Amino acid sequence: MRGLHVGAGIVQYREDLQTPPAAPGECRVRVVQAGVCATDLALVRGYMGFEGVPGHEFVGRAVDGPLAGRRVVGEINAACGTCVDCRTSRGRHCTARTVLGILGRSGAFAEELVLPTSNLLPVPDGVSDAAATFVEPLAAARHILDQVDVRPGMRALVVGDGRLGLLCGASLQLAGADVHFAGRHPDRVDRLGLPMAWLDAPAPKSFDLVVEASGRPETFELALASVRPLGTLVLKTTTERAAPLDLTPLVVDEITLVGSRCGPFAPALAWLAEGRIPVENLVDARFPLQEGAAALDRAGRRGTLKVLLEVDGS
Amino acid sequence: MRGLHVGAGIVQYREDLQTPPAAPGECRVRVVQAGVCATDLALVRGYMGFEGVPGHEFVGRAVDGPLAGRRVVGEINAACGTCVDCRTSRGRHCTARTVLGILGRSGAFAEELVLPTSNLLPVPDGVSDAAATFVEPLAAARHILDQVDVRPGMRALVVGDGRLGLLCGASLQLAGADVHFAGRHPDRVDRLGLPMAWLDAPAPKSFDLVVEASGRPETFELALASVRPLGTLVLKTTTERAAPLDLTPLVVDEITLVGSRCGPFAPALAWLAEGRIPVENLVDARFPLQEGAAALDRAGRRGTLKVLLEVDGS
Repeated sequence: MRGLHVGAGIVQYREDLQTPPAAPGECRVRVVQAGVCATDLALVRGYMGFEGVPGHEFVGRAVDGPLAGRRVVGEINAACGTCVDCRTSRGRHCTARTVLGILGRSGAFAEELVLPTSNLLPVPDGVSDAAATFVEPLAAARHILDQVDVRPGMRALVVGDGRLGLLCGASLQLAGADVHFAGRHPDRVDRLGLPMAWLDAPAPKSFDLVVEASGRPETFELALASVRPLGTLVLKTTTERAAPLDLTPLVVDEITLVGSRCGPFAPALAWLAEGRIPVENLVDARFPLQEGAAALDRAGRRGTLKVLLEVDGS
Repeated sequence: MRGLHVGAGIVQYREDLQTPPAAPGECRVRVVQAGVCATDLALVRGYMGFEGVPGHEFVGRAVDGPLAGRRVVGEINAACGTCVDCRTSRGRHCTARTVLGILGRSGAFAEELVLPTSNLLPVPDGVSDAAATFVEPLAAARHILDQVDVRPGMRALVVGDGRLGLLCGASLQLAGADVHFAGRHPDRVDRLGLPMAWLDAPAPKSFDLVVEASGRPETFELALASVRPLGTLVLKTTTERAAPLDLTPLVVDEITLVGSRCGPFAPALAWLAEGRIPVENLVDARFPLQEGAAALDRAGRRGTLKVLLEVDGS
């Protein structure tokens, strides 16, 4: 099949890739569109020693199984189903899991992918292909609401105005929080048409909830310093290296730091079906699959929000 | 009055110290005994730019106010009572607060101290002077139970077997957790006579709850690596410098990191009154006030648990 292959820091468009094999309980999916995420760019740089087809944000059409012929999205963590994590509803944290396009499972930047049937959800008709590619990052952003008791009027700050940061801010805003941003691009805050404010210099210790979504270790200190005593800091992004951090304010001000990764797809898909967040506004460029290397390059350029790959028919 | 004075890295026993003035709503307390804490040693090294009388673990006798003549202990944070933190029950985090022997308030290593009347609690007759000096650190340790839902059978690991670590382990054990220790002194685990286990090498990702109580940045990584996915890490001690930390596992495994400082005195005092924890077993040495410099020196020596200062009558 056709697809992008990443290995040893090189991105190649190839037409000779093996179609991934489907195990019992798994479905084949023809990819329609895929979104480029910061994690994909990190994988190219060697994060997690990745080699293979990257890509985990997608909309496609199920080839077989109960959803055959329907448009689908799919949760990216494929759990073993039998270990202690799986038996205690921690399947997303199964230590034997594979992760689409990230860990031990061929990804979405190719004509076909395979996921457990139970990971797939049908996409409602009113949700465009472009919007559907945002289900995965929106689910990750909205997951903050599963972890933190976000209440109307709560003062929230999102540090980082990239793709994920904007979706985090939107999720908090939809939950009723009073959302502020600190980052590098004041103009982006209006891109989603939601009432969110820009701050050049957030006042220290003044936010009930701060979300660090920049992926840059040097902004962690600003994020931590902005939380009020007994407040909450959500860490939404990993960094690729250890950085000198002073956690003293966390102890003295008794702040809770919440690590946050992926979230459930269903509520995010419902938001998209209800048109609550115009995620298409974040799309800056579209590339056909064969120009995938250029797509990743563009996604990594400063100022770019979302880049989509048109896989089917490209 | 007589007392210990710290400034510019020097500890001096002096007989010419000013008795601290009492404001309206404050009580004078004659100190009977005081305990030396790691924070006191850090203050001597220059932590927080401290100058004055240190000491915040004490038992004394109220000189005036409604508890006049009675043995008392006292919460160490003196809040302003009027700011937004105070009005929203976050008085311990009042930004205008003073802290006994730590921040803007003369401490317990002297004949007399002053605290707001509302900070003082009478000590039940059955609690010895030595045990009463442990109320403050025990309250800080037991505070984990206010912050984390500790359930019977929960697998807990305490990293750090110093004074505070042992009290944290004891608090978790009394709440029904299955408590393990990692540290440098296997023999200490039995010191409190509670069923707690020693581990040379804790298995990674295998504890529901981990408490970092060593104060050493280099053990943070061990503590974080020991938490299971979706588990909790309590950070109980500050370090005196920033250290390179990799928070990636916190995000990937969605761990919650809880900063924890002081706790309420009443439940800790109740535990002491009920004889639940034989804290006196942790006392390694007692010094009269005039030998305070030697007491601090001894407290900082490897292998020492608690050092008490006999203030009254010494």
